Amino acid sequence: MKDISPFRNVERIRHNIETLSTFVDTSKPGWTRRPFTSWYGQGRDWLKQQMQACGMEVEIDASSNLIGKMKGSDDLKPIMVGSHTDTVTGGGRFDGIIGVLAGLEIANMLKEAGITLRHPLEVVDFTAEEPSEFGISTIGSRGMVNNLSQEMLERNDPSGLTLKDAIKMAGGDPNTIAENARKKDDVALYLELHIEQGPVLEQSNHKLGVVTGIVGIHRYRVTVKGKPNHAGTTPMNMRMDALTGASQIILELEYLCGLNYSEPVVGTVGKMNVEPNASNVIPGRVVFELEVRSHDTEILERIIAKLIEKSAEISEVRGLKISFDCLSKSEPIRVASQVQDVLREACQATAPAISLPSGAGHDANQLARITSIAMIFVPSQDGRSHCPEEWTSYEDVALGVEALARAILLFDKNLDFV
Amino acid sequence: MKDISPFRNVERIRHNIETLSTFVDTSKPGWTRRPFTSWYGQGRDWLKQQMQACGMEVEIDASSNLIGKMKGSDDLKPIMVGSHTDTVTGGGRFDGIIGVLAGLEIANMLKEAGITLRHPLEVVDFTAEEPSEFGISTIGSRGMVNNLSQEMLERNDPSGLTLKDAIKMAGGDPNTIAENARKKDDVALYLELHIEQGPVLEQSNHKLGVVTGIVGIHRYRVTVKGKPNHAGTTPMNMRMDALTGASQIILELEYLCGLNYSEPVVGTVGKMNVEPNASNVIPGRVVFELEVRSHDTEILERIIAKLIEKSAEISEVRGLKISFDCLSKSEPIRVASQVQDVLREACQATAPAISLPSGAGHDANQLARITSIAMIFVPSQDGRSHCPEEWTSYEDVALGVEALARAILLFDKNLDFV
Repeated sequence: MKDISPFRNVERIRHNIETLSTFVDTSKPGWTRRPFTSWYGQGRDWLKQQMQACGMEVEIDASSNLIGKMKGSDDLKPIMVGSHTDTVTGGGRFDGIIGVLAGLEIANMLKEAGITLRHPLEVVDFTAEEPSEFGISTIGSRGMVNNLSQEMLERNDPSGLTLKDAIKMAGGDPNTIAENARKKDDVALYLELHIEQGPVLEQSNHKLGVVTGIVGIHRYRVTVKGKPNHAGTTPMNMRMDALTGASQIILELEYLCGLNYSEPVVGTVGKMNVEPNASNVIPGRVVFELEVRSHDTEILERIIAKLIEKSAEISEVRGLKISFDCLSKSEPIRVASQVQDVLREACQATAPAISLPSGAGHDANQLARITSIAMIFVPSQDGRSHCPEEWTSYEDVALGVEALARAILLFDKNLDFV
Repeated sequence: MKDISPFRNVERIRHNIETLSTFVDTSKPGWTRRPFTSWYGQGRDWLKQQMQACGMEVEIDASSNLIGKMKGSDDLKPIMVGSHTDTVTGGGRFDGIIGVLAGLEIANMLKEAGITLRHPLEVVDFTAEEPSEFGISTIGSRGMVNNLSQEMLERNDPSGLTLKDAIKMAGGDPNTIAENARKKDDVALYLELHIEQGPVLEQSNHKLGVVTGIVGIHRYRVTVKGKPNHAGTTPMNMRMDALTGASQIILELEYLCGLNYSEPVVGTVGKMNVEPNASNVIPGRVVFELEVRSHDTEILERIIAKLIEKSAEISEVRGLKISFDCLSKSEPIRVASQVQDVLREACQATAPAISLPSGAGHDANQLARITSIAMIFVPSQDGRSHCPEEWTSYEDVALGVEALARAILLFDKNLDFV
């Protein structure tokens, strides 16, 4: 197999990231490129030119995903590389973006190396991966795998525009999404390079992360009802304080998630409201949202069961009413172990690498509905993302691209095992 | 001393409470009579007629307090009985009201019993005791003791009306508040009957509470700063979660206030805000307000010192920045022990009584600046107040009135000790 590393080009990667970061809404903080805006369209126009310049044929599919296609030597299903170029408001220059630019960069590297893959290569900029004004995320990848319902297409953004019309304006053909969708095994393999969005690679001094899968998320709304009595006249032993009860549950969740499990687990209470929220009234009602994430659904179920058990004790001792309402449960996605083996080989040939799960969702979640997925992470400085401080050195991005290119060359030889 | 108990009149008390409860803003929940409204004026007109009907001379003082005056046989400073007839929005029929009606009732009882006190008796409906639209509470009692500053008088309510003009419209003369204010020892003694607003009397099966004093309140704003990282990608051991840190502090405050002290203590976190308050972001900043109340300032200082010590530990272990900003410290007020002795004698001759502190502030806080104060509590059903459910049985109110009348007869004989 030809060595691809001489064609690593940090300078071109830097140039492309910096160029794309000029197509942003400067009235917003950070590097903001919301989907379906003029800045988003300008970025895609530039991207299309880059794809064409390295010999790719470019199309916009029914869901308005931008796809650059490079022919393969054999009559095979395509290998797909993708991510997204939209950002959250006040976001950074790397999340999603480097995954799309990695596809472009690999096309350039292959061209320079004079390599023609057996499989066709498709580089995809998926439409609107981040939570959108329509209340939906991963819009383009959903559409590609026929997971964008009619109800979703009819939703309005705050200005009254339907998602359907937004997709049409972005060059898509929303009425043909279902018939044009990719079906099971229409894609040989989906690969995505992404920033870690967490501190693990940086803190453990690794440059590359082989993603073992994408965690499942279970979310609950917890309501703690006490009595909103006078903070001055109600003795400590006659209170039904919803906030001290909630505090105990929050610490119990932290304790349970910090125990040793066969798979990493995280649990968070991020959202909380206190009522009546007055300094001289004992809180009568506290509502908070908790989530737990892991690769192993059984661990999630066990933690929630333990927490509900503990909450029943707290409720009894404190005279509170505590209820748990499940808001959502997303299933974990596992990267096939043979795929992980190849990724590990490709990463280790490039730079120090470890295996880790993805704690966040990606376009890969949708693609996993129809094909095998593979993901590589590069380090996030300070673990930050979705903020202007989001940063990954261009050298690290280039290492991620090289590892992804190596992996594609390995998979291109043999994908029968997947 | 003549026995006053045959003149206890539950029926008249019921009738007066129910009549006053008809002068309310029915567009608001509960029994709402905000100060400076037409309903407030109607209630006062009715009250003035009742005072006059039992032979009192009625005046509106410079601060717009409504005062009924009954002459005494000797040339002495007046004994004053009072409270307020304004309510919080959505309030009840007892808080403040029974203290004013007690004064009226005692005047009626004395008349029926043919008793003339040695001291003049003054029954006061203090203007606007509850937090007002001007951001000030105990407006009338502040004015009476010259504790209403020019700055306060110039404040506006949301409609732009100044407090000065509101007092003028209520019959006061705001420009002469200072010159007409009562000075040190212009009042022989101030007495107030009030609902407990807490559960202690009811839960301990007592009908009367001898108030030992009014607690001091120390309030702090606590800011806990962590890092708002991604809830999915940040492992449990790499977090700086402001909410779990805050939860520990809240439980520590509860623990510290539940220990055994020489005086009762309560501590509460009633108000709390989490940032960014999103279910998938680890809380980066939590700001909450805590208050501690006790008769003993030293206990308050000790609890806060311990809490700050513990917070420093939490801050170190969790990598958080925690700061305490003092918002206010009000000094506790003690009822003189000789006054308590007389109140105890009067209460015990009437019904089962215990001694307890007042955890809430009252007009008595202001009167304590110029004279000795005495307070008696009657039970609050379920400890509730400032809500439509606020309730004290008419029999219990009548027992409170009788005890207050007995105390006045005892004090009237001899107030030299105070």
